[in-house]
Formats: sequence, structure tokens, C-alpha cells
Amino acid sequence: MDFEAFFKGELNSLHQEGRYRVFADLERHRGNFPRATRHTPEGKRDVTVWCSNDYLGMGQHPAVIAAMHEAIDHCGAGAGGTRNISGTTHYHVLLEQELADLHGKEAALIFTSGYVSNWATLGTLGAKIPGLIIFSDALNHASMIEGIRFGKCERVIWKHNDLDDLRAKLAAADPKAPKLIAFESVYSMDGDIAPIKEICDLADEFGAMTYLDEVHAVGMYGPRGGGIAEREGLMDRITIIEGTLGKAFGVMGGYITGSNAVCDFIRSFASGFIFTTAIPPALAAGAVASIRHLKNSPFERARHQDRVRKLRASLDARGIPHMMNPSHIVPVMVGDAAKCKWISDLLLDHSDIYVQPINYPTVPRKTERLRITPTPLHSDADIEHLVGALHQLWSRCALARAVA
Amino acid sequence: MDFEAFFKGELNSLHQEGRYRVFADLERHRGNFPRATRHTPEGKRDVTVWCSNDYLGMGQHPAVIAAMHEAIDHCGAGAGGTRNISGTTHYHVLLEQELADLHGKEAALIFTSGYVSNWATLGTLGAKIPGLIIFSDALNHASMIEGIRFGKCERVIWKHNDLDDLRAKLAAADPKAPKLIAFESVYSMDGDIAPIKEICDLADEFGAMTYLDEVHAVGMYGPRGGGIAEREGLMDRITIIEGTLGKAFGVMGGYITGSNAVCDFIRSFASGFIFTTAIPPALAAGAVASIRHLKNSPFERARHQDRVRKLRASLDARGIPHMMNPSHIVPVMVGDAAKCKWISDLLLDHSDIYVQPINYPTVPRKTERLRITPTPLHSDADIEHLVGALHQLWSRCALARAVA
Ligand SMILES: Cc1ncc(COP(=O)(O)O)c(C=O)c1O
Ligand SMILES: Cc1ncc(COP(=O)(O)O)c(C=O)c1O
Repeated sequence: MDFEAFFKGELNSLHQEGRYRVFADLERHRGNFPRATRHTPEGKRDVTVWCSNDYLGMGQHPAVIAAMHEAIDHCGAGAGGTRNISGTTHYHVLLEQELADLHGKEAALIFTSGYVSNWATLGTLGAKIPGLIIFSDALNHASMIEGIRFGKCERVIWKHNDLDDLRAKLAAADPKAPKLIAFESVYSMDGDIAPIKEICDLADEFGAMTYLDEVHAVGMYGPRGGGIAEREGLMDRITIIEGTLGKAFGVMGGYITGSNAVCDFIRSFASGFIFTTAIPPALAAGAVASIRHLKNSPFERARHQDRVRKLRASLDARGIPHMMNPSHIVPVMVGDAAKCKWISDLLLDHSDIYVQPINYPTVPRKTERLRITPTPLHSDADIEHLVGALHQLWSRCALARAVA
Repeated sequence: MDFEAFFKGELNSLHQEGRYRVFADLERHRGNFPRATRHTPEGKRDVTVWCSNDYLGMGQHPAVIAAMHEAIDHCGAGAGGTRNISGTTHYHVLLEQELADLHGKEAALIFTSGYVSNWATLGTLGAKIPGLIIFSDALNHASMIEGIRFGKCERVIWKHNDLDDLRAKLAAADPKAPKLIAFESVYSMDGDIAPIKEICDLADEFGAMTYLDEVHAVGMYGPRGGGIAEREGLMDRITIIEGTLGKAFGVMGGYITGSNAVCDFIRSFASGFIFTTAIPPALAAGAVASIRHLKNSPFERARHQDRVRKLRASLDARGIPHMMNPSHIVPVMVGDAAKCKWISDLLLDHSDIYVQPINYPTVPRKTERLRITPTPLHSDADIEHLVGALHQLWSRCALARAVA
């Protein structure tokens, strides 16, 4: 087989579908977020980033930066080993305590990413609990889907956020089989939120464990940034809460929290936890600083929600169609991969606005979109500039307007 | 089902088998590697670390530290997004160029860890190349095994480093099927090295791609630290070279290098690459500094090999049995999980020497061992201290001596 020709052929299909991805080469500027410099073959250009998942700008917060510097000076660059073999530093221990406290759980366990935490935890539960059936929301993230596949257990997919469907599927399953319901709080691409309480009620009724991905909510919701389950007083009803250190907390890494037994079990059996170098002490230290700050400061959360409201109102005033939802994610729907990329290119080239086009496989085909994420650091002028640019494009290109 | 009881039961079995893992809580000290402070419930103790995979001590190298500080000051803590959605910074682009250059390849692709690079790459090749058969060395790392499983392609396991078995299995397979041979250069637990040239000859004969994990060799072997394949002039015969930034390079992250087409293919299709936050700019910057330093400085490699020789000679002089191999890994065999943990505890408590016991599933049962990794920063006195302590233990406990 000519492997090179095969790879090139597959890449050609992506080009033809208009969904070949070109990564923007950015230089972020501490103290100047959401501004960044974009490197192109033609030179450098300053842009405003409108699609970062550093949702609160904590990636440049002085407390986070200082904690990272301090840890590097104190103990160096990397952890130097897997968690078991010399890679557990005191910073890791403190971070796990901080995370357990954040979610009101006995224990926490850090992974190299949110992706790995979902994959390794769901995979290990699926593989090790005899007869486990995992009930997975139809729009769960790729990392959860791959984890469930990897566990090779029985998997039942229920319609997205649909309690009737979930109930019907739980009721249809063997009453004696152990069960787990896996879902997210804020769904990252549509920004809608799961009915957590009702799902927990069903879990109780059918004796199921609950697994909640709060990746797009931690830091941003709840009085201490514990996520949607904290806001709604439901943390104690979730068996395992999973999150990331790489989005609102502004650093990198993932985690689960739960009882001592469940965390110790995953710690002891999950391949994706055991056989990999631990995160650097500086990342753990930065995450601790970020979580502590957001536990005590409601300011970023309030300002974040204010910016979201402001952007939505501004889009509405100009008739730019966006998907309504109760979160901070503002999807402007385009519905075509090539058109979406073209709008994004025009925004970048003519207005120095960077919003990455979102296409398959991140969202279903025909729901391609601009996924806009306002942060506390976007000013009124930034919002005006963005909406003005979209308005011009919508006028120029006869894109559908929202009906008033 | 009572889930808590189930988890506790499984953990109890680990305790009974003597293979429940307790992580040492360490505080590394920049400038004072391999010394660290160990936190225990009874207080702090200074220890000498003898099991770090920061093989060359680059985790505390001034150039690495400076580059990380600079990147944090310049652009903040995290990348703020997946590689596609605002998470590619100029540091990532430079790191990929540096890695491609290190291995003499057209391109490189960074992952969050070596684990994820193996898992995502092998999984994606297995899933996407119709009819692919992966020929996997029997002792391949967990991350490669899980990746191959995840790809759901046909998998043929050949006897560890056994060319006759590999040839027989290649010959027995459908001549028209696309094939890939996956193996490591330095095997991390036994420290033996694959016959790379002969494997490449077989790959040519049977038209197979080659996939080489150089995780325990990059930085440490070859004139520029390109690994065993560089040392032996074989890099151009390997289709994909995989490595980590978390061991000899002292930071964290993983990568593959290969042709433009294969890297672009993995970049475009691998779930574990696409759906996860990019590594922080500071890690990319630290890795670039580390790789550049080791490309130009043979000093660390020479001193590393010298320390390994010295330790082996010292062990031999006292009749402490260790597995001979042509690498830098010095396995002192114990062959029993409980005894191995007990020796390790005594070394720690009586001699302030930290060597983590290695047990199942990291190594097969009955091959439990102390895996000792000397670094350029271990002094003659450190070696004397370690071997002296082992000698005392061997005398006291009637452990088998090596026959002279
Ligand atoms: C819902 C969800 N879960 C998990 C992840 C993975 O988290 P991380 O970026 O830390 O790997 C993501 C996105 O990256 C996500 O959107
Ligand atoms: C052979 C081998 N490959 C890959 C890995 C994973 O690399 P990382 O620690 O960067 O995840 C390891 C160990 O951790 C390993 O021993």
C-alpha cells in the first residue's frame, strides 16, 4: 500500500469539503488579553480573540502567574515521573485537596487533561464493574464517548437532555445491572444546560451512579465557582464530578472528584492515570491559585455574565441570528463549512477579529457556526467592533437575518 | 449494586497482594536535584531520588527555567483553547519545527503527553487505514496497547525483540494487507534495546510502515539527542518516531514526527489530538530550550553514561544482582511485590534513599524490582551511599546475591 498517497487522499477530501483546518498561529500577550498577535506568512497582525476558552482571562491573572513563577523557581520545570514513580509533588497533593474542597467531595484525582480524565475514568469503570451499563447523553463530548467505548461495557445512548427518553431506557434495562448515567452540565457547542436535579432523581430511582462533566462550568458558575451543580445545590447528589484546569481556570490538566473509594479505585486501576508523566508542579501551583481566587471572588463571574448579556443584546439589535441558551456560549449559526470558514477569514483579514469556524467533527454537519465566547475582559468597544463587523458581513453576503 | 463496597473490595485485594500503591509526596528543589523533601504525616525528611525519569536533570536546567519564565511573563499561563480553537501559539509552532529537525523529519505534532501521542496516533491509523494489521512487540507500553485496541484493527503480537517471530508473523499475513510494525527503542522496565535496523529491513521486505517509541531514548542517545535511531543512523527508515517531552527533556507533553502527510493526517483525524486543550506556551518554550541545549551539548549524555557504568560496577563489587542491558536503566530484581515494597520502605526510612518499588501492572508479577535511574547529577558519594545501603539490606535479609 502507498501510505503517503492514502494520507494525501484523505486530506484532499477534507479540502474539498471545505473543512480542512488551518490553525491560527497566535502570540498571546499577558496583561493585554483578549488581544493577541497573529503570525502569518505575510507578517504579524494584532487581533482580538473572540473564541478563547480561557473564559475568565485567568490565564493572565497575577496570582496565577506568580504561583507558576514561584513553583518553577522552587522546584523546576517538570514533575520528572509518573505519579507513582517520583512524580507526585506537594503541589499535586495540595491541588487535589483544593479540588475536593471545591466540589464538596472527599477526594480528587488529577489527570493530564480533561480529555484523559473522562476517557480514563469512564473506561476504567466500564471495564472493571461487572455488567455495568453506561447511559450516555447523545451529545456527550468525544472524550466521554471514547472512554465508554474503551470500557467495552454495555452503552445506552439517550436523547440529549431528554428525561423521558432516559427514564424509558433506564426502565427497559435489567433492574439488577449496575448503572451509570454520564452527562455534561453546560454543553460546549450549543451552550444548553442539563436538568441535573431531574437526572439525579432518576438515578436514585434506578440505583445508578452519576457522572457529570462540568468542564464548561467550573470557575464560572456557583458561589465558589464549583459549577452548575454547586449553583443548584446538587453537588452531593453526583457520584463523580469531572472538570478541567484548562478553561476557566486558565492553566491545563483535568480531574475527577468523588468519594475516597472511587478516586482511589481510579487511581489504582486507570491505565491513562498510571502510565503517564504527572503534570508539572508549576501547573498544579497555578491551578491552585486560580481556584482559590475564584472561590473567593465573584467579580469575574458577574462581569462575565454581564458581557454575555451585552453581546447578545447587541447581536439582537442588528438582527444577527444566535442560538439562545442559558450559558456564556454564544453560537452564531452559519450551517455550511465553507461559508463559515469564509466569514471567519473575512473577520480576520478585514477586522482583525479572530473567531475560529467550528465544523464537523466538532459539531454535526450543517450546524457549522461561529462560537463566540465573551470574557470579562472584552470591553463595550470590543463588542461594538465585533457586532459591527458581523453586521457588515451579513448585509454584504445576504446571510439570513434573525426574524424580530 | 453497592458501588462504594465494590470499590473498597477491589482496593482490599490490592492491599492483600501487597501492591497497593502509596505515592511519595515530594518537594523537588531546583538547583539541588536529585535531592528532594519528602512530606510524611510525621513531618519532612530530605531524600535522594533514585527513580526519576528526569533522566538528565533538565527539569532544573537554567535555560529551561528561563524559557518558561519568559513565556509566562510574555503570554500567560495556559494556551486557552484546543489547537484548532485559539490554542495554537507561536511557541507550539516553534516546538514542532524543533522536533521535526531533531528527528530529520518533515513535520511534527505535539500532544498533551507521550501516552496520548501513542494512543491517539496508533488508534487513528488503526481505525482509518482500511484493513491495517498492526504488528506489536509483546512488551510495548500500555499507551501503545490501548491505542491499538482503540483502533479496532487486526493486531498481531510478536515475541519481544524476536526477529524470527516477527518475520514469521509478517509472512503469515495477507500480502496485500497494509501493515505497521510498532515497537520501542529502549524498553523502560528492562532497559533492553530493539534491533531497529533488522526490524526496518523486515518492514521493507513486507512493505510495512514502522512506528518507533523513543520515549526512553530522546535527549539521551545520538549525537544530537535524537534517540537510538539517530545514534544508529536509522531515523530516515522509520515512518513515525514518537517521543515525550516529560522525561529527558524535563518538561511535559508528547509528540510524533514523520512526513508532512502523516502528521497532517493525524492532526486532522485524531480525537485525542483535536478535542483537548493545547499544552501551555511555557511548556512548549521550556521544551524548545531543553531540546536545543541537548542538540548542542554532549556533556549530559556522556556524564549520564559514566554514572550508569559507575553504579553498575559498584553494584557488581558488592554482589547486588541487577539486570544487564545496554541502556541507562538499572533494574535490581526482587521478584516479590511485598518484599520489594519492604526494601523500598527500609531504604527510605533508614537511608533517606527514594526508589519506588515497581510492581504489577507496570511489570509482570514475580519480576517486581527496584528500577534505579542514575542521572548526571548523582555524585560518587551518592552512588556509594545507595550501594552501601543495598548491601546492608542484602546481608540482613538473606536476599540472593549475584553469582560472581
Ligand atoms: C465537555 C468537554 N469535556 C472535556 C473536554 C476536555 O478537556 P481538556 O481540554 O482539559 O482536555 C472538553 C474540551 O476540551 C469538553 O468540551
Ligand atoms: C515506552 C513509553 N511510552 C510512552 C510513555 C508515556 O509518556 P508520557 O509520560 O509523556 O505520557 C511512557 C511512560 O510514561 C513509556 O514508558
